[in-house]
Amino acid sequence: MYRIGIDLGGTNIKAGLFNERGEIIERAMTPTGAWRHYTQILKDMADIALTCVKNAGVGLDEVLSVGVGSPGSVDNKNGVLIYSNNINFKNVPMRAELSRHMQKPIFMGNDADCAALGEYRLLGEDIEHMIFITLGTGVGGGIIINRKLYNGFNGAGGELGHMVLISGGEECSCGRRGCWEAYASVPALIRITMESAKNNPDGVIMQKVGGDISKIGGKDAFDAAREGDAEGLEIVNKWLFYVSEGLTSIINIFQPEVLVIGGAISKEGAFLLDPVSELISKNRYTRDISQTRLQLAKLGNDAGLVGAAFLE
Amino acid sequence: MYRIGIDLGGTNIKAGLFNERGEIIERAMTPTGAWRHYTQILKDMADIALTCVKNAGVGLDEVLSVGVGSPGSVDNKNGVLIYSNNINFKNVPMRAELSRHMQKPIFMGNDADCAALGEYRLLGEDIEHMIFITLGTGVGGGIIINRKLYNGFNGAGGELGHMVLISGGEECSCGRRGCWEAYASVPALIRITMESAKNNPDGVIMQKVGGDISKIGGKDAFDAAREGDAEGLEIVNKWLFYVSEGLTSIINIFQPEVLVIGGAISKEGAFLLDPVSELISKNRYTRDISQTRLQLAKLGNDAGLVGAAFLE
Repeated sequence: MYRIGIDLGGTNIKAGLFNERGEIIERAMTPTGAWRHYTQILKDMADIALTCVKNAGVGLDEVLSVGVGSPGSVDNKNGVLIYSNNINFKNVPMRAELSRHMQKPIFMGNDADCAALGEYRLLGEDIEHMIFITLGTGVGGGIIINRKLYNGFNGAGGELGHMVLISGGEECSCGRRGCWEAYASVPALIRITMESAKNNPDGVIMQKVGGDISKIGGKDAFDAAREGDAEGLEIVNKWLFYVSEGLTSIINIFQPEVLVIGGAISKEGAFLLDPVSELISKNRYTRDISQTRLQLAKLGNDAGLVGAAFLE
Repeated sequence: MYRIGIDLGGTNIKAGLFNERGEIIERAMTPTGAWRHYTQILKDMADIALTCVKNAGVGLDEVLSVGVGSPGSVDNKNGVLIYSNNINFKNVPMRAELSRHMQKPIFMGNDADCAALGEYRLLGEDIEHMIFITLGTGVGGGIIINRKLYNGFNGAGGELGHMVLISGGEECSCGRRGCWEAYASVPALIRITMESAKNNPDGVIMQKVGGDISKIGGKDAFDAAREGDAEGLEIVNKWLFYVSEGLTSIINIFQPEVLVIGGAISKEGAFLLDPVSELISKNRYTRDISQTRLQLAKLGNDAGLVGAAFLE
């Protein structure tokens, strides 16, 4: 039997057909057109999914299930996308609407949860508990407990980016002050980089962006640090400290076998993982017992698609 | 069948015999004598447990299991109390040692976990996920997920007091800076009260302790606040803000049906619960969906004993 995964993003919709070994055998993509009515967007989702099935020469009767990953709050129990600020969806009856185009069991999940599930599939069944963290525009989390996604009683759990890191601190997109996301996201890294550049008008960072602070991106400080620039290193260390502080809390709370770090910034590799591991070792609550294994995400942009396909 | 619960504390050891309805039908207590060798302490634990059985006129063959709650890190899988700073235990083979005195299945748990289990039993099987928080000398946590205690892969999870609240802030007993425990424990409340009293030598707090700052306790600010004293109210509000900040994070992470607050300070009742509920409503991540129910612990000092008896 095959499975369909659909990844609904703010810019593009991706679909993939997976075989029983979890390999992607066909894929398709189309722009989201996020301004459109949800019925049109959901029809496109079904269309590219069915295109995958057709192009693979597979019968729809050979498809076990359809899984959809979306940003925002997802109520899989009732088949409703409660809220997504990226796509302007509110209380969209996603399952009912998709069912009009595909008479298949349809499962829904939050995008970070799907990515968590995708990465979890690579770890194997020996791992009981895993936490997935994505460091990107936001800080998202996915919780696997007893080999299953954990979401709380209302499907809205796992908002690990919205535990407080500095109570009363920086404003967060969620309206609260001091959330981990306001310190460990890529926008936070950019904010810290900008503040530093302002104070170092002759520094390497400022040179990189030709004196235009507004051009500073998430990679500039890392690039400068790699080149041995002291300012770059200081910025990166400051940001990695915030990253590690949240991860340490998560380990103290969950003690998972594995903690996986994903998101664009995870491409920095050992440059990110090594200092973070060291800070966690120094600050975690438990010392003399087995410790959580820290590792970088492996699936990259496909994690959400893979995870969506294996929702259940 | 009956069950035995044993609560090993820094000052006293308590034991209770429970019937099938979870009612305590016999109890016994003895001083811990924490300075003694562990074999002696464990023998006393077995002795008072067996005394309960004898006094109840029950046969040991009618006892299903023995559960022990202890402070510190407990490895139930291997039957070892890894570490407890209150009693100076390190890698104590508790199950093996207790088995010499009682040939029964012996289960072990952390005291906060036992208290969580005790409170959970009162909620009924409809509740899938519950978080228990104890505000006392420390800030402890117990996590019930899918109707079972959750402890992480190494048995050391659930250290909710050791998520960071103000990164880089006050020193915590665990060696890290800024843990929730360093802001929401009773010692933290006392610290905040002392700081305020220092700055208000003619205030109500200072009067309450006859001008001796070292006599300030955890109740003084609450007592002053209840009397309408502005200083007392300010202290209580500051501390309750810290309490609520951690609870809000926990809700954003777990979204449990119920969050139970225990510990000595929970006796402050609505005076604690009402402002904390309001702060959480204001700051939590999710708005338009079912929300976590906040309530105070009901079992008081017996929670740990009840929970220990029902470990499995």
